[in-house]
Amino acid sequence: MKLTGKSFIGSTRGADSEKVLYGVNPANGEELQPAFHSASLNEVDKAGRLAEEAFSSYSKTSGFERANFLRTIAENIENVKDDLIARANAETALPIPRLQNETGRTINQLHLFANVAEEGSWVEARIDCADLERTPLPKPDVRSMLRPLGPVAVFCASNFPLAFSVAGGDTASALAAGCPVVVVAHYAHPGTAEIVAQAISDAAKSSDLHEGVFSLLYAVGNEVGQTLVQHPSIKAVGFTGSRKGGLELMKLAGSRPEPIPFYAEMSSVNPVFILPNAVRERREQIASGLHASVTLGVGQFCTNPGLVFVNEDENTEVFTNKVKELISATPSGTMLTEGIGENYKRGVNSLAEKITPLHHDFSQTTSALFQTNAKDFLEDKSLSEEVFGPSTILVTHQNKEEILNIARTMEGQLTATIHGTEEDLHEYQDLISILETKVGRIIFNGFPTGVEVTHAMVHGGPFPATSDGRSTSVGTRAITRFARLVCYQDFPQEFLPDELKDENPLGVMQYVDGLFTRKGRYTVKF
Amino acid sequence: MKLTGKSFIGSTRGADSEKVLYGVNPANGEELQPAFHSASLNEVDKAGRLAEEAFSSYSKTSGFERANFLRTIAENIENVKDDLIARANAETALPIPRLQNETGRTINQLHLFANVAEEGSWVEARIDCADLERTPLPKPDVRSMLRPLGPVAVFCASNFPLAFSVAGGDTASALAAGCPVVVVAHYAHPGTAEIVAQAISDAAKSSDLHEGVFSLLYAVGNEVGQTLVQHPSIKAVGFTGSRKGGLELMKLAGSRPEPIPFYAEMSSVNPVFILPNAVRERREQIASGLHASVTLGVGQFCTNPGLVFVNEDENTEVFTNKVKELISATPSGTMLTEGIGENYKRGVNSLAEKITPLHHDFSQTTSALFQTNAKDFLEDKSLSEEVFGPSTILVTHQNKEEILNIARTMEGQLTATIHGTEEDLHEYQDLISILETKVGRIIFNGFPTGVEVTHAMVHGGPFPATSDGRSTSVGTRAITRFARLVCYQDFPQEFLPDELKDENPLGVMQYVDGLFTRKGRYTVKF
Repeated sequence: MKLTGKSFIGSTRGADSEKVLYGVNPANGEELQPAFHSASLNEVDKAGRLAEEAFSSYSKTSGFERANFLRTIAENIENVKDDLIARANAETALPIPRLQNETGRTINQLHLFANVAEEGSWVEARIDCADLERTPLPKPDVRSMLRPLGPVAVFCASNFPLAFSVAGGDTASALAAGCPVVVVAHYAHPGTAEIVAQAISDAAKSSDLHEGVFSLLYAVGNEVGQTLVQHPSIKAVGFTGSRKGGLELMKLAGSRPEPIPFYAEMSSVNPVFILPNAVRERREQIASGLHASVTLGVGQFCTNPGLVFVNEDENTEVFTNKVKELISATPSGTMLTEGIGENYKRGVNSLAEKITPLHHDFSQTTSALFQTNAKDFLEDKSLSEEVFGPSTILVTHQNKEEILNIARTMEGQLTATIHGTEEDLHEYQDLISILETKVGRIIFNGFPTGVEVTHAMVHGGPFPATSDGRSTSVGTRAITRFARLVCYQDFPQEFLPDELKDENPLGVMQYVDGLFTRKGRYTVKF
Repeated sequence: MKLTGKSFIGSTRGADSEKVLYGVNPANGEELQPAFHSASLNEVDKAGRLAEEAFSSYSKTSGFERANFLRTIAENIENVKDDLIARANAETALPIPRLQNETGRTINQLHLFANVAEEGSWVEARIDCADLERTPLPKPDVRSMLRPLGPVAVFCASNFPLAFSVAGGDTASALAAGCPVVVVAHYAHPGTAEIVAQAISDAAKSSDLHEGVFSLLYAVGNEVGQTLVQHPSIKAVGFTGSRKGGLELMKLAGSRPEPIPFYAEMSSVNPVFILPNAVRERREQIASGLHASVTLGVGQFCTNPGLVFVNEDENTEVFTNKVKELISATPSGTMLTEGIGENYKRGVNSLAEKITPLHHDFSQTTSALFQTNAKDFLEDKSLSEEVFGPSTILVTHQNKEEILNIARTMEGQLTATIHGTEEDLHEYQDLISILETKVGRIIFNGFPTGVEVTHAMVHGGPFPATSDGRSTSVGTRAITRFARLVCYQDFPQEFLPDELKDENPLGVMQYVDGLFTRKGRYTVKF
């Protein structure tokens, strides 16, 4: 398709602003055509107001209608897959197979949320039946369920141009919940964004939805995003990106006249704990797996393992040497943007001034490996900051108490990984207990990269891994982020949402007088 | 029991500070003995640290153990009921029958949350089974559930000395979730707080729990509460009180180095919409019900109906006169504190300067009734601010569009009420749709006061009714406020929480590969 470089303001295309940006091929620095016009503040406002207009009808669509919309988006993306992957490859230097996988994941996510919307039980319908005979006062009929929050602002991620961008997880979950979406495109892949936006825009049209259900804004600088987060029509925000950017927007979301839920996935070093018996029994295997996880996609994953804790004993050196050998043999890679590459080099150079570099090349984006001990690690907080890229630090410790101390003082993380035997787990139960309070997901004998998009996945974690550690941005539980509870007291059946009706026409799971049922309240009562 | 006037810092009693406060009988201004010592900042810190220590064991207790603890608290309260009600009556001037009811409600809440903890399905257990044959990569085993957040700070409410104070809804739901609690007593009922705190403290001891599971702090001024909200051990806050107090603490909770969830129930005017056919058919009945709701408990409920919208037609005057007649005949009441009484007088006097008082006595805490029209109402935002007490404003409007406009521009509310016939509801469907985006609970042909404590209740609503409109502070759904998702990937069965085990030993509802079951995963798979 021919790219226009214009924002999608509902069904019209906007190019009010003179400010432009270009996609850049990070492999060769080549500027890609066309120019993309930043949205004007007027266009931001229009997108927000259209989303609010769309909300009154879109929030009332059935799960079937939303499923149909999401599936049409998936189909439209499938139809432009070749163009999309070619453009994404040019804009990000991510390899074609990776982008093919990511396109598949994006399409699967849309289908998964379509299924969740269609099945309908995600609304957590509850019914407490009336008891008119109760004394001293009759008991009313009380019913409640999750209802969509309102228009949602979504910020695209640099490192997932498809699966966490225009039609990515935040958009899919918000649309499935019944919320219109206004997306801010990432400057690093504007053409990819336009191709996907066209797929959504076409789907909205063919599904006869209000045009405001979807807008896409291009942004030169931070003003567009900041204005959108403060727009009175916007009722929640989904963000994936840096800690700095996330914290700035979080502050804006919280200091609006009406503060709104703000879901940012920000930064994580994803500690890996290798317990004594595991390193003795499987050191070569763990070293290979660790190397693969650290260097996957030039280390550009939020679940990249940036810290590895290993007991200092006779096995450590063999393990360390193996990791060093593998890291040293890894070719240098092209990072997503020049800025990300520069930040990575700055990060590893700064580490090299503080701790022992086992492998590190000052001039190139090569994988880096550092080593320190628990005592020095605990004394320098900067060693536990994320360096986005293929770098990791091996931290050796002398005993269990040292590692428990490190875990206790650790910031919130997306993941923690434990390699151990069952014997190790018995010995280190306290470590599991501490990690349960620090992370969103604990992986046993695996690696944190590769986040399954399933019903049980939690891609979240306490601050500062995310801005709201109660939720997840990956997997079907993400849909509840964009909803809130609404309660209906003594409503006539006709005016209740279908999910709360006695006869349960949608067959959703209902919680009736404290019992789960799919059969409607009368089955439970009699 | 003999009151000591000392804070509960775990199992010890603290009176470090020289600052003291006294309970005051609002009926006669009499100062009640003994003096209550404000907690020192050192004691606040100690309570926070003890709660963190307690968390590591208390968060691991089973639902049965927590249920036992909550039921023991209920039993201990039952045993001191007479002393408790007498002291609460002296401190609040709330009538004995009301306090008897509220004690019953408090005990019932504890039992309800005990049942929820014991039944166990509240954790939303999810299991996605592994698929080792999947290509290109095997699918891991992923399981997740809600786990307790950490120590919770609870602020007592002035208007519910029992049901929303020391052993009230916030405490019961936090303890049920597995979170230790540090309560800040309300200065208006310190003796009531001590009696209840002793009941909890005794229950913690007889249940062999870590002493830090419960502390109670007395507070002269705001410093104790502010320090507690900023304490690094505290991971969530439950608050019921004024908008000003709530917003101040919300800001502190959000600007900590680690921001934490802050659940404040702050202010609401609980609009009542009386639709044309309803006022024609049931004006006398509605007038009586409205009067009862406005004046209940001297109007000191967060669900007190402060705004009543009625169509201006031939029936309006009869309705208005009836309300006026009832309000005028209502005897003056004693409010909870002198300050609350003064605020109420200030509030109604200020209204009387702006709009027509139909009934209003400048010198006394009598019920007040005002009247204005939609046009004037829309022009003066101050008319939609809460006046805490037995006052309400009748707002007449000319047509449907006017009332929809008012609903659209309304702030977030705990409740909205609609009186109408089914014909009215058909005509005013748009009003329901707007209210669904503005309130936590919509009541049909009833009144907002009297909040049922059930599974489906939602006592929440968009900002500024609460600080977090996604949740509820009343009813069993409140437990999820104090929990967050934790995910376990490829864990050996032995190390999983019972709720996530294959054989499902607790028989909780599990969501296994997208299907609900109580029977364990094998039943679903084969």
